Amino acid sequence: MREIYLDNSATTRVMPEVAELMCNIMTGDYGNPSSMHLKGVEAERYLKNSREKLASILKVQEKEILFTSCGTESDNIALLGTARANMRRGKHLITTKIEHPAILNTMKQLEEEGFEVTYLGVDSYGVISLTELEEAIREDTILVSIMHINNEIGSVQPIAEAGALIKKKNPNTYFHVDAVQSFGKQKIYPKKMNIDMLSVSGHKIHGPKGIGFLYISDKVKIKPVMFGGGQQGGLRSGTENVPSIAGMALAAEYLYTNYEEDVLKLYLLKKKFIEEVTKIDGVSVNGVKVVPENTENSIEALAQYLASPHVISVSVKEVRSEVLLHSLEDKGIYVSAGSACSTHKRTPSATLVAIGLDKPLLESTVRFSLGIYNEEQDIDDAVKAMSEIIPMLKMYTRKR
Amino acid sequence: MREIYLDNSATTRVMPEVAELMCNIMTGDYGNPSSMHLKGVEAERYLKNSREKLASILKVQEKEILFTSCGTESDNIALLGTARANMRRGKHLITTKIEHPAILNTMKQLEEEGFEVTYLGVDSYGVISLTELEEAIREDTILVSIMHINNEIGSVQPIAEAGALIKKKNPNTYFHVDAVQSFGKQKIYPKKMNIDMLSVSGHKIHGPKGIGFLYISDKVKIKPVMFGGGQQGGLRSGTENVPSIAGMALAAEYLYTNYEEDVLKLYLLKKKFIEEVTKIDGVSVNGVKVVPENTENSIEALAQYLASPHVISVSVKEVRSEVLLHSLEDKGIYVSAGSACSTHKRTPSATLVAIGLDKPLLESTVRFSLGIYNEEQDIDDAVKAMSEIIPMLKMYTRKR
Repeated sequence: MREIYLDNSATTRVMPEVAELMCNIMTGDYGNPSSMHLKGVEAERYLKNSREKLASILKVQEKEILFTSCGTESDNIALLGTARANMRRGKHLITTKIEHPAILNTMKQLEEEGFEVTYLGVDSYGVISLTELEEAIREDTILVSIMHINNEIGSVQPIAEAGALIKKKNPNTYFHVDAVQSFGKQKIYPKKMNIDMLSVSGHKIHGPKGIGFLYISDKVKIKPVMFGGGQQGGLRSGTENVPSIAGMALAAEYLYTNYEEDVLKLYLLKKKFIEEVTKIDGVSVNGVKVVPENTENSIEALAQYLASPHVISVSVKEVRSEVLLHSLEDKGIYVSAGSACSTHKRTPSATLVAIGLDKPLLESTVRFSLGIYNEEQDIDDAVKAMSEIIPMLKMYTRKR
Repeated sequence: MREIYLDNSATTRVMPEVAELMCNIMTGDYGNPSSMHLKGVEAERYLKNSREKLASILKVQEKEILFTSCGTESDNIALLGTARANMRRGKHLITTKIEHPAILNTMKQLEEEGFEVTYLGVDSYGVISLTELEEAIREDTILVSIMHINNEIGSVQPIAEAGALIKKKNPNTYFHVDAVQSFGKQKIYPKKMNIDMLSVSGHKIHGPKGIGFLYISDKVKIKPVMFGGGQQGGLRSGTENVPSIAGMALAAEYLYTNYEEDVLKLYLLKKKFIEEVTKIDGVSVNGVKVVPENTENSIEALAQYLASPHVISVSVKEVRSEVLLHSLEDKGIYVSAGSACSTHKRTPSATLVAIGLDKPLLESTVRFSLGIYNEEQDIDDAVKAMSEIIPMLKMYTRKR
C-alpha cells in the first residue's frame, strides 16, 4: 500500500541529503567543537557554517543564533530566560490562547513564579486583534510571545504589525515569536519585524529531530535555563550536536533556496484539497476563506484566503476524529486528530475552542498537513478516501 | 597521514551500524511518537525498544529511563529537579571538587537559589574519602552527587560503598551519579548500588551527540526543568529524538555485549601506554599506581591499579600542554589539554589542583583517552611520537 503522509506539522521526513551529511559527520568528522586539535576545528567549522546559513536566511548576526535541542527548549529558554532575567523591570507577560503547550505550560510555570500573564483571544479565523494587543501592553510588560503559524488550524498572525505596535507602545517589551510551524513557509526578518527572539525546530522542516535554534537579538538580557561547560556563551551548555546542527542548517538552506516554487506548490495543493473535500456532505474547513475564482496563483494572493500554506483543519459532522483518523490510516493515509504535540490527551483543543467552533465539531476535527514531498496525487487520493469513508462512518454513527 | 584519535573522553566516533540505523529511521520511520497513526506507533516502538535495552543493562524498570538531549541536561534535571522539588525537606547538597562543570556550575546556580553545598576533596589519586562523605551527610542533606569516573584523570569513585553509606546515614538523601565517563566501561546496577539517579551521554559511548538519558528511581520526587507538551510523563517535554535514542541504545547494547573483551583490551592498552610513556624523561602519569609484574590480565586485577580503563592523564615536565597537543596533532595524533568540556578556558584544572599536582605540571598535562576503535598500533605510534617530540620541545623551552 502506498503511504500518503499528511502529518507534516507533527514531524517531517528528513531529506536524504541531510541524513547523508549527518551520517558522514557522525562517522568521519565526529570531533568535539571544544577540542583544540584538527578534529575539533573541523567540528567547529560545521557550527560556524551552519550559523552563517541560518543567520543569512533571517538576515541577523551569526552570534544571535543559539542552538537548542528542540522547539520546546527554544521556547523555554526564551520565556524562562528573559522573564527570570528581567523581573525587576516588571512581571507582566502577554501571549495568546492558541499557543503550543511549550508556551502555554511555560507561562503557567512563570505564573507559579509570580508573573502575571494576559492571554489574548482570537477571532473565528484564529487571528488576534491588534487593538486588544495594544490595550494589553503595560509599563511593566516585559515580554510578548505570539505564535506565527498555528499548528492546529494554520492561522497566521500579523507578526510584523504586532512587532511595530509592541515597540511603539513599550520599547522595553521583548517580542518572542514561536516560528516552529512558519520557518521555511514564511519569509521572516526579525530585525525588520521587531522580533527579539524566534524559536525554530529542526524536525518540522525536513531536518532531524532533537535539534532547534533560538534567534536572540544581542540586545536581549537573558539567563540560561541549564548550566555546565559554558558552550555557546554560557547560554546553552553541553557539547554541541554538530551533525544535527549541520543537518538542520542544510534543510533550512534547501527550503529557502526553493522557497517560491515549494511554497506556491503547497498553497495550490491546499487550495485544491479544500475545494474538493468541502464538496463532501458535512465537511467544513476551519480558519480559511473561500478563494475567489479569478485569484492569481501567487503566494501573496493565496495567503490572503488560505492562511498557512500547509495546515488544513477539517471538521466532519457526526464523525469522531479518531475514527476518521484510523479509517484513513487503513488506506495508508496519515493525518492527525488535533495536534500530535499534546500527547494522547483527550481534552478538547484550546485552539478550536478559541475560534468558537461548534461544540459538536470539537471532537470531529482532523488535521491534514502538507510537506515538500507531497504531490497532487496525494491530495486526489486523500479526497477520494474521504469521500468513500465519510458516508460509511456516518451510517455507522446513525445506526448506533 | 594516519589519524590516531586518542580523545575519546571528549567525544567518540559513532559506530557505523548506529549511524546506519539512524539514517534509516530519519528517512523511513520518521513518525512522531505522539501521532496516533501507524508511523507514530512505529516511532513509539523504537522508544520502547530503546528503553528496554537500557533498562535491562542497568537492571532497572523501563519507566525509570528518561531521555534527555545530553549529559549536561541529565545532570541539570537531576540536580535542579530534585533540589527544587525537595527544598522543604532540607537545603543541603554534597558533591566533590572534581566534578564536571555540568555539576559544579549547576551547584553554583543552586547556591544562588539558597542551597548550601559541601564540596568533598580527593586524595592524590583523585578518590574521595568515605569518612569525609559520612561526616558531611546531615539531617537536611537532600542530595549527594558524585561522578563515577573522572573525565580528566580517570579516577574511579567507590560508588557502591558511597551509596550504602549515604542510605545508612540518611535514608532520605538522594544519590546522583554522573556516569557520563563510566557507562559502557563499568558494570552499573543502580538498585544494588543505592543510586537514585544516573546521568549518561550518547556521544561518549560511540553513539550520537545531542542525546543522553537519566535513570531516575521511581521513588524520587522531581520537578521538570522545561515545560511543554507533556512527553515522558511531563518530566521532559519536546518531541522525542527517536533516531538518536535508538542509536544510543544500540551503541549501549553493543558495548555491554562485548564488555569483557573490549574493556580488558582498553586496560591492556592503557597499561602498555603508561609503561612505555613513563620511560621518557620527565613524563609522569596521574591517578594510577604501578601494576605489579605478576598481575593477572583481568579487568578486576588491572582496575585496582589503573583506575578507569580509558583515561590517561600525562604530565610532561617543562612542556606546555598546548604545545605538546599541537605537536602531536602535526603527527595526526589527537589528544586533549585538560578536558575538552571546559571550552577554551585557560584556568588551571580544578581536578589537577584537587589531587595536589605540582604547580609547574598544572599547565603541562595532557589527556589521552581510549575508545573501542583504538588498537595497539595507535599506542605504539603515540609513544614513538612522544619520545621524538618531548626532547625537542624541551630543548626549545630551555633556549627561550
